[in-house]
Amino acid sequence: DNQATKPPWGDLLAVPLADVLRVHLTSATTGRPLAFLDTREDWRGFYHSYARSLHAYGVRKTDMVMAAFSYGPWIGYWSGFYAAQELGCLVFPAGGLSTDQRIDALLNYPITVLGCTPSYALFLAEHAAKKGIDLAKDTRVRITWHTGEPGASIPATRARIEAAFGAQAYDLPGLTEIAAWGFECDARSGLTHVHEDYCYPEVLDEQDRPVGPGGRGELVFTSLYRKAMPLIRYRTRDVVQVADRRCPCGRTLVAFEGGVLARLDDMKKVRGIIVYPRRIEELVRPHAEVDEFQIVFRRHEGLDDILVRVDPSPSLSLSERDGLGAQLGESLRTGLGLRVSVEMTEPGALPRWDHKARRVKDERTEVPF
Amino acid sequence: DNQATKPPWGDLLAVPLADVLRVHLTSATTGRPLAFLDTREDWRGFYHSYARSLHAYGVRKTDMVMAAFSYGPWIGYWSGFYAAQELGCLVFPAGGLSTDQRIDALLNYPITVLGCTPSYALFLAEHAAKKGIDLAKDTRVRITWHTGEPGASIPATRARIEAAFGAQAYDLPGLTEIAAWGFECDARSGLTHVHEDYCYPEVLDEQDRPVGPGGRGELVFTSLYRKAMPLIRYRTRDVVQVADRRCPCGRTLVAFEGGVLARLDDMKKVRGIIVYPRRIEELVRPHAEVDEFQIVFRRHEGLDDILVRVDPSPSLSLSERDGLGAQLGESLRTGLGLRVSVEMTEPGALPRWDHKARRVKDERTEVPF
Repeated sequence: DNQATKPPWGDLLAVPLADVLRVHLTSATTGRPLAFLDTREDWRGFYHSYARSLHAYGVRKTDMVMAAFSYGPWIGYWSGFYAAQELGCLVFPAGGLSTDQRIDALLNYPITVLGCTPSYALFLAEHAAKKGIDLAKDTRVRITWHTGEPGASIPATRARIEAAFGAQAYDLPGLTEIAAWGFECDARSGLTHVHEDYCYPEVLDEQDRPVGPGGRGELVFTSLYRKAMPLIRYRTRDVVQVADRRCPCGRTLVAFEGGVLARLDDMKKVRGIIVYPRRIEELVRPHAEVDEFQIVFRRHEGLDDILVRVDPSPSLSLSERDGLGAQLGESLRTGLGLRVSVEMTEPGALPRWDHKARRVKDERTEVPF
Repeated sequence: DNQATKPPWGDLLAVPLADVLRVHLTSATTGRPLAFLDTREDWRGFYHSYARSLHAYGVRKTDMVMAAFSYGPWIGYWSGFYAAQELGCLVFPAGGLSTDQRIDALLNYPITVLGCTPSYALFLAEHAAKKGIDLAKDTRVRITWHTGEPGASIPATRARIEAAFGAQAYDLPGLTEIAAWGFECDARSGLTHVHEDYCYPEVLDEQDRPVGPGGRGELVFTSLYRKAMPLIRYRTRDVVQVADRRCPCGRTLVAFEGGVLARLDDMKKVRGIIVYPRRIEELVRPHAEVDEFQIVFRRHEGLDDILVRVDPSPSLSLSERDGLGAQLGESLRTGLGLRVSVEMTEPGALPRWDHKARRVKDERTEVPF
């Protein structure tokens, strides 16, 4: 809003514009995206803490790294690209390449580490499989890391990515406005460590009181390293759970159980029950025969209803598709406490995603609070 | 050839692979492109000398810079992007953006410096004009720089770019295998200075003897800063002319008259006469009503022939088109010493180029020596 009133930078800039090196845009879903500015030192801080995350996954200077994104003004993998370079990795600049060209590069160069959104990782694997290529066998990828979507912190989604690449998949939660703030480590204990020396976290309940160990709340961050656009007690709208145990890796940084458990902005209410799209993904992904899916919140015969459209594996017979639909309906009813409509599409009918997926549609004109 | 036999790197690598930071591919016209590797220090050398070129154009840390390319493995603007950052400029990462989105960014952000191929600069301007946008008036661009094609060293092409952006346009000749080796300075004397402390130039005649001041020959380079893939006396296939005068700027670096005058690989022989496509561009571009063109070498009624296809400005009447065709035929006949066929297409019929243009076709099956 501030930048819309005072274009292009608003009045959030705390240093002279001449001292600013980088600009990135947030992926706003509506309106003009927010432009976020960094000085050279800010930018170094962003990718240096990110490099620590990559190192915690096991990435080393002997690795060759592909960050598979468009190299537009999205900070998520630009900072990852710089982080990999800071570790001394050989980086393959993959902008402007088609999915076929990226697969070709994975086959022909000794690329051992791949960064991309979870949705794009699954799309790459599906696309390769159609061409008879098994990325797990035919490439040298050993580590993948994922940001932009929470997928890699959802066990079934992670398992699917790991099987597709024959690699270990890691979640990297981050926010343009704050930092690539967290990472899982190779102890794989289910905990997300926070770079609290770069950004100070608070987790607050609905009355803005700090929650204790084991408690859930909204994550609030203060950036400690950024001079161009410093943010104090920035409400992330992300829900996390403070860990009440130590990670076996020995790190003493603040940690959360799992990654970002929910986005407050994504919360939906259906017949009085709160539903997060992430929870639906957690319930759908364990069904290996689901290639892609879509979640539609709609008003059906006067009642709020959830429709899950499922794009089944082409290997299923028609009766197997029916069986899958019934199983999914049962998983969703049990997991959400709500009856959910499941609809099978033809294989390949639903859109695939090369950036962040948009699998959720809300068709209701009046949304209940 | 070496890399094809011993994929993926060949045996040209002079350091351990773990010490390599960057890979870029040459834009080979046939076969698999050559992969060129750099250590961190090599890469810094490449973009540091490039930064000197940008500084010579007048680029300063207060500038905001857009390098408009795909951010694929092409060194030409990756190094320019890093060079601008080294100067402390604010860089706008423009990968994955459409031409419309790039124009939108030029209108909405205070971008003062633009880097792109000459062909893409003209395409951007034509595309903007169709939407009623005058980039010279509606943006703050004050400097453009161009590599990948020699266009900005061709006076009429440069003049067209400068008029379209209301800016000063500079040529930056470079080679993936050597360096961003040269630059014009803001004295605009028509000389190209060479970063001879980064790459040592020799200019050799057809008997491999050094030419003196004023002489033309093939440019041969030895890279002095690159450790991963150092090249000694690398034959560039580029023809240059050694300057026999000083630049008023006072620089004492070796200088060439104009930029790269011809590519030996592009040389064509037509009815016994040597023709370079660049020379045809020099003769076509002064005709302001030519929006795009194409050069076809063909066998016509048993004789070698040059056909120049011209895509005229939509503002011309049919009789004006005929007049333009006659003028062009006359310019080409005089300039090349050859009769040339000129053909008018419908406005907008010829392809436009967002990377390096491919305006030359050789349809002859037997090419004379």
